[in-house]
Amino acid sequence: MDQFLSEKMSRIDSSPIRKAFELAATLKNPINLSIGQPHFPCPENILDAMDKAARDGKTSYTLSAGIPILREAIAEKYRSFNKISNAEPKNVLITSGVSSALLLLFNAFLDPADTCLIISPYFLMYPSMIRFNGGNVITLDENFSESDLEELKNKKIKFIIYSSPSNPSGKILTLNQLKALANFAENSGAIIISDEIYELFDYDNNFLSIGSFYDKVITLSGFSKSYNMTGLRLASILAPESIITALTTLQQYTIVCAPSVVQYAGLEALKTDMTSYIYDYREKRDFVFDSLKEKYTLTKSQGAFYYFLKIPGNDEEFIKKAILEHSLILVPGYIFHPTHNYVRISFATEWDQLKAGVSALLRMV
Amino acid sequence: MDQFLSEKMSRIDSSPIRKAFELAATLKNPINLSIGQPHFPCPENILDAMDKAARDGKTSYTLSAGIPILREAIAEKYRSFNKISNAEPKNVLITSGVSSALLLLFNAFLDPADTCLIISPYFLMYPSMIRFNGGNVITLDENFSESDLEELKNKKIKFIIYSSPSNPSGKILTLNQLKALANFAENSGAIIISDEIYELFDYDNNFLSIGSFYDKVITLSGFSKSYNMTGLRLASILAPESIITALTTLQQYTIVCAPSVVQYAGLEALKTDMTSYIYDYREKRDFVFDSLKEKYTLTKSQGAFYYFLKIPGNDEEFIKKAILEHSLILVPGYIFHPTHNYVRISFATEWDQLKAGVSALLRMV
Repeated sequence: MDQFLSEKMSRIDSSPIRKAFELAATLKNPINLSIGQPHFPCPENILDAMDKAARDGKTSYTLSAGIPILREAIAEKYRSFNKISNAEPKNVLITSGVSSALLLLFNAFLDPADTCLIISPYFLMYPSMIRFNGGNVITLDENFSESDLEELKNKKIKFIIYSSPSNPSGKILTLNQLKALANFAENSGAIIISDEIYELFDYDNNFLSIGSFYDKVITLSGFSKSYNMTGLRLASILAPESIITALTTLQQYTIVCAPSVVQYAGLEALKTDMTSYIYDYREKRDFVFDSLKEKYTLTKSQGAFYYFLKIPGNDEEFIKKAILEHSLILVPGYIFHPTHNYVRISFATEWDQLKAGVSALLRMV
Repeated sequence: MDQFLSEKMSRIDSSPIRKAFELAATLKNPINLSIGQPHFPCPENILDAMDKAARDGKTSYTLSAGIPILREAIAEKYRSFNKISNAEPKNVLITSGVSSALLLLFNAFLDPADTCLIISPYFLMYPSMIRFNGGNVITLDENFSESDLEELKNKKIKFIIYSSPSNPSGKILTLNQLKALANFAENSGAIIISDEIYELFDYDNNFLSIGSFYDKVITLSGFSKSYNMTGLRLASILAPESIITALTTLQQYTIVCAPSVVQYAGLEALKTDMTSYIYDYREKRDFVFDSLKEKYTLTKSQGAFYYFLKIPGNDEEFIKKAILEHSLILVPGYIFHPTHNYVRISFATEWDQLKAGVSALLRMV
């Protein structure tokens, strides 16, 4: 029945990240540095809140935009943590993970042939979902300066999208870069989508929400990475009210609502201190840098829990060698970037795994 | 920022069902016969299973197609309950509610200008999502005969979609009707989407899965209605393997996976006997029919938990009068059907509510 596939299905392919994930399941004792989620457990108080909601009968549909008490708490989080002073509950839509947020956004706002600017290297879902919805993609390196943006000023750009802290590089965009993006957006009419799902993983206090000084922004935040709730599917979108209204309408016809009991878990998550986990990841971030810097050319990761590592030779061959000779699972760089000279390492794992992985990487060059 | 909306957003509007739901929240003591979900609680053993999964650390991403043990259990349910003898785990995709299943299907298989046949009256999401994805809609009354289908044989139809038991009418398609649809599909190349989310609500043992005798079918089943898990977002799709493969790829880029802990809850749900609840709804189904039949023209509902009631005059005026004069909340028929002579009544409620609602309806004519 393949002949029934829509034309746009030819624009996406099975996620190579997921392939690595599934490959991991087939190796006996793999060293797995490929996983894009924390290794620590979801804190018990969050699970308690989820269970309490279920026992209280909160298993029915919620309002499409989310339960009012969580929209309120998230708005407060945007004001206090992200310094977005005008964030109100009416500016918040609760949805089922950042990937669902992207689905809503690109369906609600993208027309065929619209162009989107993606800061590169990028989360692989951005170009896939943009192309799936008929849009075009141009990219700009994450180390861009204001003058690089100047060269794009004659392009008609609908969205500018990035993750900061970045998956896959750990780069956090600087204040000057964010200001340049805001200026460019203001002058061109482009809308900025700032994916801040890794906001808590900020090791040197560099992270800044662009929404704290510019307001034509759609900010995406998740609970998945911060609290190891990746499988529970909860995220939020902060945007001007007219955008939230449109996205809520589309959510009614697609996602319907984020999982009800998980919304109550999210309320508890916002009260949970994750500092000790972040400290652990900072140590791991330092360890990887200090261990690899002699043998690899690499920039110190500032956030998230990744390194985007330049390697000698081709990424797919490197990945294959890592698996076959070292039982080491990595993610090839080409899915984040249109070249073949990088691999992504995740340091969101136990020390013994990380040390074994780093040791294998040192033996590989 | 409304000028940024995609063209296709003009094809959907805020769900009137949801509006009724939100209006209900504003009345002081409404009699609410508008809600499309069961009034009974989700059974405790299902909540126990969900909590146990959370405590066991199952808060991370699952495989995109769903946890293997649930795919296996659902395949077994399709074989034993639905009598679909060739149902295997590879034919099952677990997703986040039937609405997400529709999202995946219409994105993966619908090209602009494709035509879909909807059995009418219909669940309002079908035409909305088909049109959103660029498709055209034709309808056929649920009391169709083989000769009615004959008249459509020169139309090129991609999908035939219906819910049986039906939301909003409670109609269950007969074996002869299903056979006629299968013949039509076989001859025309159309694919049948059989939405069986109300399969458990079958009061006179009339329900039959078309997949039990015809195999080019996509069967949709949910946990929402059967176990009051509407807010937990869990459903399954049964289809030929090539279709499941395509839908799984698209799910990776959109939904990612159904909520992890809810998948474990689903496993327990399949072992849970809901007979006593179904008996309760059968009594209520009978009560509504016996009470209203003298004053209204109505067909006895066979399944789901609705009546599609023919009313004198216009549905929107009737609805307004019901709210203002009787604090009674109903759903206008026009959202299920292109006429204005019906309202939908849900009998999924407590006896006192149902009796008060029926009493108000008797006073209204």
